[in-house]
Amino acid sequence: MTVSGAAAVPRVEIVTVGDELLSGQSIDTNAAWLGRRLGELGFDVVRRATVGDRAEDIRAAVGGAAARADVVLVTGGLGPTPDDITKDVVAAHCGFPLVIDEALLEELRERFRKRGYTELPASNRRQAEVPAGARVLRNPRGTAPGLVLELDGSTVILLPGVPRELKGLMDPQVVTYLEQRFGSRLAPVRHRLIRTTGIAESALADRIARAIGADDIAPVALAFLPDLTGVDLRLTVRGVADRVEAEAHLDRVAHLLAPAVEPYRYTTDDEDVAAVVGRLLRAQSLTLAVAESCTGGLVTKRLTDHAGASDYVVGGVIAYANDVKVAELDVDSELLESEGAVSEEVARAMASGVARRFGADAGLSVTGIAGPGGGTPAKPVGTVWHAVALSGSVTAVREHFPGDREEIRTRAAQAALAHLWARLRRGSHANEPLRGAGD
Amino acid sequence: MTVSGAAAVPRVEIVTVGDELLSGQSIDTNAAWLGRRLGELGFDVVRRATVGDRAEDIRAAVGGAAARADVVLVTGGLGPTPDDITKDVVAAHCGFPLVIDEALLEELRERFRKRGYTELPASNRRQAEVPAGARVLRNPRGTAPGLVLELDGSTVILLPGVPRELKGLMDPQVVTYLEQRFGSRLAPVRHRLIRTTGIAESALADRIARAIGADDIAPVALAFLPDLTGVDLRLTVRGVADRVEAEAHLDRVAHLLAPAVEPYRYTTDDEDVAAVVGRLLRAQSLTLAVAESCTGGLVTKRLTDHAGASDYVVGGVIAYANDVKVAELDVDSELLESEGAVSEEVARAMASGVARRFGADAGLSVTGIAGPGGGTPAKPVGTVWHAVALSGSVTAVREHFPGDREEIRTRAAQAALAHLWARLRRGSHANEPLRGAGD
Repeated sequence: MTVSGAAAVPRVEIVTVGDELLSGQSIDTNAAWLGRRLGELGFDVVRRATVGDRAEDIRAAVGGAAARADVVLVTGGLGPTPDDITKDVVAAHCGFPLVIDEALLEELRERFRKRGYTELPASNRRQAEVPAGARVLRNPRGTAPGLVLELDGSTVILLPGVPRELKGLMDPQVVTYLEQRFGSRLAPVRHRLIRTTGIAESALADRIARAIGADDIAPVALAFLPDLTGVDLRLTVRGVADRVEAEAHLDRVAHLLAPAVEPYRYTTDDEDVAAVVGRLLRAQSLTLAVAESCTGGLVTKRLTDHAGASDYVVGGVIAYANDVKVAELDVDSELLESEGAVSEEVARAMASGVARRFGADAGLSVTGIAGPGGGTPAKPVGTVWHAVALSGSVTAVREHFPGDREEIRTRAAQAALAHLWARLRRGSHANEPLRGAGD
Repeated sequence: MTVSGAAAVPRVEIVTVGDELLSGQSIDTNAAWLGRRLGELGFDVVRRATVGDRAEDIRAAVGGAAARADVVLVTGGLGPTPDDITKDVVAAHCGFPLVIDEALLEELRERFRKRGYTELPASNRRQAEVPAGARVLRNPRGTAPGLVLELDGSTVILLPGVPRELKGLMDPQVVTYLEQRFGSRLAPVRHRLIRTTGIAESALADRIARAIGADDIAPVALAFLPDLTGVDLRLTVRGVADRVEAEAHLDRVAHLLAPAVEPYRYTTDDEDVAAVVGRLLRAQSLTLAVAESCTGGLVTKRLTDHAGASDYVVGGVIAYANDVKVAELDVDSELLESEGAVSEEVARAMASGVARRFGADAGLSVTGIAGPGGGTPAKPVGTVWHAVALSGSVTAVREHFPGDREEIRTRAAQAALAHLWARLRRGSHANEPLRGAGD
């Protein structure tokens, strides 16, 4: 990364301390939160390390980081119990003795007095000890203060590991300190998300590579983030201090990408396709009913995850047994017999049937073989049909999904919702081809 | 950790690669999962590092880890896009050229053929290149293989960053390899899980404290792990090399805990209450139909997460609109009018109605106010009724759950399933009181 005409962007390393992080008993959410917050501020977060509550490992991690980075943020190990040793280890490594901070001690006494203790527990008294010469940041949400020290020309900041205490110390105290210290060198990072579904990561990459070159998008970086519901594109612009200029870069690249991604792009916000479907239904004053077989309720669950879904979701039928498809969705039993439950005809009949039975404007159906059993050579596990009944026409799409039962169900629900999305957006895109996720 | 009479416990370092981890766009759940899995196997996980998609940083992190640890697990950066460089960097650092693995190439071709591609995308072709001399572990869930290399006397294992691909490669391939390689040096940690629902963490802790003392359970450690579905108790015995002896400790403590936890304990396996319900339905040759309102499909989705659910789940109705409750579940419209949709009478009518309409032996219903809107002083957001119709009797439970929409829906689905579980187990526990989650 280079930022022409400016001093180097300050590099940050994060060290998180705690046996529970290494053993996986706790997920390190602080590290992700700090990464986002520091990136927004314009720091370059270059490395993160996690070590257990062992003096030697803490010393090696903090010392190594201080030798490389401008700022080292250390979280965890500042509590009152004997396994909390971060402060002692780092102070000793920096060569600073620990001294009692009288103001801090009085605050702690007052805090415990309010909670009904007549005297400060000995374990908490330790928390009033600070390395001589350290800047002390008062913790508004707990007993462990934040501490700022200098080591090898690097700024080392010790913060508690409890997420809400960490956040309470970062904003505003640590942030204010860092901005004053590094202000002119900061290069804020801005992101834009483009969420797609119905196309594989590699195929999307090929479409984009054919449409634009790597040079066309500079200084924007493009990342592909695939999961079972589709592929997200994340555009990042870094090192452009002016906000309007940065947004203009993102706009330009989003525009360049548009022809390649448009058929698959359902949103540029941090929302799922069910939210987009909900917005389209609401905007078009349409109601929806859902008939699910293999997804077992997942499609309707995703639609109703969103507050206000009762305005457009009437309800649904989970037709696991064939009898239910006949009795509750009016699927012709001879059709079921001749074509099988996983077939285009049955998917169409389920979508029309549920809309009619529930008095809804639109019907959405899914029927498939999620496995592990139930597959045949003609209809292997992973075969799924989904259909949409809307405005007098029923469209149906066949898919074949890889993966286990959970993956097939997740993909099937996403594909069905994407199918409905494609139908609902057609009002303004009448010539869009309709695609299945396998395309 | 010490294991008398044995060689040192093998040390593992984990390196996770990806700009999105440093920037906080993604939370590193792999690291926690790997930490747990490796601990169970008997490894000592001593450090974790996260670096971005930069060659120099990847090289430094992997090289440093290999110099210290017996095993280095590297995740991420094996995908088909240009920012995926882990394999190239590590192979170059180890001095191994990349060569095409013909068997892997053919597998990739076949995979894409099945998905309807006539030729392999160029970006995926790169994924068939492996460092010469590396052991290749086939990835059953994706296109990037796992790779095992030797560096500085350390075993370096490259794995994809997509969590389900990582897990699919770890179990059994990586685990088998590691156990064969380090078997005699491993110091397994053994766990026993006791899963409870319908009781708060503090109330459960009080019941247990009244029943047994801390000394009674040594050398077993007891941890309380609360989440939205209940409180798990985890018993851990560590450093007892003999498997039979370790299991005997766990058995003894589980037996001591039994009287305190029994009313709430639905399993001692790593399975959810829906799996237990499914087993009881199957054992009693009963079929089930579900009527959901506020949970919007989540209860039936959870039941049908389990393979073979079609043997006992007939189907369900998601009755979001009141009209649907009347038309599809035969709920009396005057009852709906007088009592409201969230009421004991309507919950009972929904459970009976869905069982009758679907010809099922049992009916389960949930109706509630998930919010954020829709609450009243008499029925605030979080009010939920669930009911079970079984063997000619209908039981109904009222709950009031805290939290946001997602939390209320999650708790409501769990409470409804736990209610059904309590009814189904009564055959052998006829005197159990029936409890709601609020008790």
